[in-house]
Amino acid sequence: MAARERLLVVGGDAAGMSAASQARRLRAPDDLEIVAVERGHHASYAACGIPYYVGGVVEELDSLIARTPAEFQERGIDLRLRTEAVEIDPGGGRVRVRSLDGGGESWEPYDHLVIATGAVPTRPRLPGADAEGVHGVQILDDGVAIRRAVEDGSPRRAVVVGGGYIGLEMAEALVMRGLEVSLVDFADQPMRTLDPDMGALVADAMRGIGVKLYLGEPVEGFDTSPDGRVTAVRTESRTLPADLVVLGLGVRPASGLAREAGIETGPTGGIVTDRRMRTRTDRVWAAGDCVETRHLISGAPVAIALGTHANKQGRVAGIGIGGGYATFPGVIGTAVSKICHVEVARTGLNEAEAAAAGFETLSVAVGSTTRVGYIPGGAAMTTKLIAERRSGRLLGAQIVGEENAAKRIDGLAIALWNGMTVEEMTGLDLGYAPPFAPVWDPVLIAARKAADAVERDMRSGS
Amino acid sequence: MAARERLLVVGGDAAGMSAASQARRLRAPDDLEIVAVERGHHASYAACGIPYYVGGVVEELDSLIARTPAEFQERGIDLRLRTEAVEIDPGGGRVRVRSLDGGGESWEPYDHLVIATGAVPTRPRLPGADAEGVHGVQILDDGVAIRRAVEDGSPRRAVVVGGGYIGLEMAEALVMRGLEVSLVDFADQPMRTLDPDMGALVADAMRGIGVKLYLGEPVEGFDTSPDGRVTAVRTESRTLPADLVVLGLGVRPASGLAREAGIETGPTGGIVTDRRMRTRTDRVWAAGDCVETRHLISGAPVAIALGTHANKQGRVAGIGIGGGYATFPGVIGTAVSKICHVEVARTGLNEAEAAAAGFETLSVAVGSTTRVGYIPGGAAMTTKLIAERRSGRLLGAQIVGEENAAKRIDGLAIALWNGMTVEEMTGLDLGYAPPFAPVWDPVLIAARKAADAVERDMRSGS
Repeated sequence: MAARERLLVVGGDAAGMSAASQARRLRAPDDLEIVAVERGHHASYAACGIPYYVGGVVEELDSLIARTPAEFQERGIDLRLRTEAVEIDPGGGRVRVRSLDGGGESWEPYDHLVIATGAVPTRPRLPGADAEGVHGVQILDDGVAIRRAVEDGSPRRAVVVGGGYIGLEMAEALVMRGLEVSLVDFADQPMRTLDPDMGALVADAMRGIGVKLYLGEPVEGFDTSPDGRVTAVRTESRTLPADLVVLGLGVRPASGLAREAGIETGPTGGIVTDRRMRTRTDRVWAAGDCVETRHLISGAPVAIALGTHANKQGRVAGIGIGGGYATFPGVIGTAVSKICHVEVARTGLNEAEAAAAGFETLSVAVGSTTRVGYIPGGAAMTTKLIAERRSGRLLGAQIVGEENAAKRIDGLAIALWNGMTVEEMTGLDLGYAPPFAPVWDPVLIAARKAADAVERDMRSGS
Repeated sequence: MAARERLLVVGGDAAGMSAASQARRLRAPDDLEIVAVERGHHASYAACGIPYYVGGVVEELDSLIARTPAEFQERGIDLRLRTEAVEIDPGGGRVRVRSLDGGGESWEPYDHLVIATGAVPTRPRLPGADAEGVHGVQILDDGVAIRRAVEDGSPRRAVVVGGGYIGLEMAEALVMRGLEVSLVDFADQPMRTLDPDMGALVADAMRGIGVKLYLGEPVEGFDTSPDGRVTAVRTESRTLPADLVVLGLGVRPASGLAREAGIETGPTGGIVTDRRMRTRTDRVWAAGDCVETRHLISGAPVAIALGTHANKQGRVAGIGIGGGYATFPGVIGTAVSKICHVEVARTGLNEAEAAAAGFETLSVAVGSTTRVGYIPGGAAMTTKLIAERRSGRLLGAQIVGEENAAKRIDGLAIALWNGMTVEEMTGLDLGYAPPFAPVWDPVLIAARKAADAVERDMRSGS
């Protein structure tokens, strides 16, 4: 039998711990030692649950933690919290780690390294951005800090900066906590991953739950009190008093450690891997928010921080290290979110992304209900499809609606994944019964309208 | 301009009126006269709404009627209710029709004929099957009769014969009306379109709402009172007293009229058409429950009575008659149903159907929840996938679960439609957010387990 090998995992969240767990499933402790280092207080947690913890939907922080260090220990995975990797030495096959609780530094050798360092929240380089009371939303410790501020500090007014998924979800959480909430974004719409017409529906919904929206207003700075606490958010047009500020400006891959070690990163800043999640550097794998992957429709590299990708990629890396074969094929940009009663979903390319990728497109947006009209409880939904001119190939889809609307994106995502045309989609055999769908499912109606648009465009002969 | 043509439509429900409406959209009244005959009191209605009308979820019968004769008249469609087609003369291009309200008979000429005669409910050839108090469920008039019996006759005990979708939905409706309900089926499980293990989950759910199930018991007859009313349902093992009996034994294509005219029907009894919905007889089209279509996975002809197919086929026929081109590609057997809080869905082939089509299969059934564990309101669901041995191609899927479970079948149906393997499905980019799905969507978990099963089977080398 070969000598026992050592797997070192840097980063103890979804991607890292999936890789560790999968490798362990395939290789026993006497064949593969597994050590994972994580600089935070928690590992294997659900960052996407933070807004629900802040809003009080989730009572206990522990509910967000999938597995404790003790549980990993039982499976033969040595997970070390509050331990930060500070340097990778690929030539020497070792990583320098530092105990954040005063335990000094050491070099940890590896035969296989998984980099799963996640993402870092974008912080604006603006005066006051680091003031007390200005919170990012990334790790569980951020959620703890915001909830503590809400429960102990009795803040009255909150300002959320950034109208992406996390910003909107945090705005809702703070509304649920009884705060007056304003949301500021430099763009003219929330959720720029949607087209403007669909984004406008989301804006209406946010206003409907009482969030004040200030769109098209870049933040210019943060006012602070003499003791260094944030007191207001300043834009070009106004000053918004704030007892609490949440930054939801998106994240970028935390790839600095890898880059400094000469491990290749791409145009998105994410670490470059092949479909088995191997970096260009020998014995080094990477997975999760720190990597870039391929967008299967545009063909372009993208970095999309999402737990579902991190889990899949970590699993693929772990299978590879375990001696098996698995691949991560890429993404098509599927995302769903729920803001109070409003559900939002998208997949593929939006109109701007499609244009940037060189596609000419035709779009249709169709209003419908989630059930047959005569069954009570049906809700409104708008389905938008974006198809390529001439070929009619589906390039993207967006849904804004109420209960039971958003998960319909999965069917559209699978149609897109398989390269279906909107004409082909009109024949799809989807589930029909009065409590679930009108006799013409919203997806089929949208496909028909899109197919009509493609045909009209062909006839116009331009 | 050519002489004005005449379209005659036999049958005024979903398929017939879709064909009429679509043809009208494409051809003006001075180019195409459209006459539709329907022998019932209603046209263009939602038969799938009957259980909801009986149960009282739908208050008014009119809610089930999509369009009135007057509305069709306005669009230049001459819809004649209570008018039955009794003979087709394809050589002469005419149909003999009879007014059921005493208006006599006449021959109606056509240039294009659409046969949309629907389906007839299976009635057992058993003593007492035609007794008063024994109801089929097919046309709106049946729904009216059952609801009247419930509201005026104060029945206490109902027996439903047949455990398919309609039988289960009617059983629920009668429970909602406060009746003691028994359900009898000759098979050992309800919903034989599901595999036995999934059917058992449905049986549990039916018992949970108080329906007594007598499975594996063929009905042998119906007892009647001296005045000819049903008093009990007899099986081999027992006599079930009944004030009301509902037959939910399925339907077969109402193709007799066509067959007598020499129009080809197939092994299912349904009228044979091409993908444009043309029969083998010149100038005669057919659509809806009276036709047979191709099952895209088994390749076999099937007759599936479902409003969504009828609407699509009618539209395709109408486009063809209107001078356009559209096709109905076939079906994959997707169906959904909701019985109280239990949602049921299926697509493709079940294990028995796959075996009959010559496939060897591997199946997995995976229990999961519809949401992340820490979000309240998640519900249990079981997802079953059936994959072909060796190729790993998805052949069928079944879901039994609670809220928000069933419509996930659409994604599986689209994967199946596109010939995906379960291995390919493990990489799918589906919508993830805590209120909608666990980080591993039930569909992805099931795909992974199925892929593992395919791999294990290959390794076993048999």
